[in-house]
Amino acid sequence: MAVDRRMAFLFDLDGTLVDSVYQHVLAWREALEAIGIELSIWRIHRRIGMSGGLFLAGLLRETGRTVTAEEIRRVQSVHAETYRRLLSQVRPLPGSRELLAELSRLGIPWAIATSGRLESARRTVAVLGLDPDRIPLVTRDHVHHAKPDPDLFLAAAQMLQVDIGETIVVGDSVWDMLAARRARALSVGLLSGGYGAGELLEAGAYRVYEDPADLLRHLDEVGVRSPDYDWSLVESLAAEGREPLLPEA
Amino acid sequence: MAVDRRMAFLFDLDGTLVDSVYQHVLAWREALEAIGIELSIWRIHRRIGMSGGLFLAGLLRETGRTVTAEEIRRVQSVHAETYRRLLSQVRPLPGSRELLAELSRLGIPWAIATSGRLESARRTVAVLGLDPDRIPLVTRDHVHHAKPDPDLFLAAAQMLQVDIGETIVVGDSVWDMLAARRARALSVGLLSGGYGAGELLEAGAYRVYEDPADLLRHLDEVGVRSPDYDWSLVESLAAEGREPLLPEA
Repeated sequence: MAVDRRMAFLFDLDGTLVDSVYQHVLAWREALEAIGIELSIWRIHRRIGMSGGLFLAGLLRETGRTVTAEEIRRVQSVHAETYRRLLSQVRPLPGSRELLAELSRLGIPWAIATSGRLESARRTVAVLGLDPDRIPLVTRDHVHHAKPDPDLFLAAAQMLQVDIGETIVVGDSVWDMLAARRARALSVGLLSGGYGAGELLEAGAYRVYEDPADLLRHLDEVGVRSPDYDWSLVESLAAEGREPLLPEA
Repeated sequence: MAVDRRMAFLFDLDGTLVDSVYQHVLAWREALEAIGIELSIWRIHRRIGMSGGLFLAGLLRETGRTVTAEEIRRVQSVHAETYRRLLSQVRPLPGSRELLAELSRLGIPWAIATSGRLESARRTVAVLGLDPDRIPLVTRDHVHHAKPDPDLFLAAAQMLQVDIGETIVVGDSVWDMLAARRARALSVGLLSGGYGAGELLEAGAYRVYEDPADLLRHLDEVGVRSPDYDWSLVESLAAEGREPLLPEA
């Protein structure tokens, strides 16, 4: 049985493929302090991955403050600068390169869709050892609204020329899960961004895994069938109540 | 109606009273890298608050590595040194000073019980504006086993001369909740350390609040009754189905 070629994977970037969430958290924290806003760090953590505009609007609503356009520019520039400084500490998450390679090997298209700006996303993609100019990459700059709006994932599906209803969105944050639901995609949550499994499931995750390596080990649970194996044989043995011999992983 | 004087609060420190979890996470990360161990940051985050020995043992089990006594000393010293460097960024969590002051005003004893070492805990307590020599403080150095063993909370209850069964343990991590259950204390989880509510509830939290300020607003839910108000009147009005007028917060 051949792989269903219409299937595709749409990946979030920070916290999903690359271990960069905690650096972003501290960079946002420094940026907010630069305009005199002090927020508990966990509150910043819980907003990572959403649109920068909504991120600021939400934080300001909680603090009851208003900011000028000049202050917003300052927050964004201090964040970008601080993140760039911390980038040397950023590593790929376990299994991310292997997962993307396996999907490519199986002929399953994939793209990366991030609420981050292109400049920052390019640097993070490079941490994966990928050339940002040679992969399907959708950033904040391509769409009108970032997550939890569905636009980023819809644009990524369009870029791959696949039906959004056949895609699996993989993300580490509640905003990925919400955006996936609004886009009518199936979503998989990863714990590698530091959210709890309950938070991801409550936001609509179909399944939750630890990190890309764990998802790679469970690809069959989200509907990927390897062409290396004759699945019809597995099914007929199962129908007879017999245990099929599965190939070595 | 007088406050029940036997009641007492036992507080965790990092992530519960002080916003220091993310700095500890990055300090442990740097320390582990110093002996060549690379771990995803969320995995380090999820072990903050537990005994340092169990922390290392757990991480090593996951990586399948062994370490020498010399390496353990090195990890601990790099962690302490890095945390000291990051301490200038550490702030009290919202409401922590007010919560402790309110308990003192109500005559309800409280203590701090942390898996951290005395040296590091003294610095963190100072961030709260408290004198570590003048408050009941139990650290890793006082007990044989840190969290999730119950020893720290048992020692804190003993220090306050209260029955552990009458105490409320307040913590931000799963290890606090587990240690509280083993000690037969009631536990309250706070989100301010970056765990999800589901993780804390699954580990046995009686209630979950955002941070110390949120707990302070809901002290009545965990059994604290203010002597400023005549609660018998509230109860008799409620029995008649009438709405009592509560004092302004």
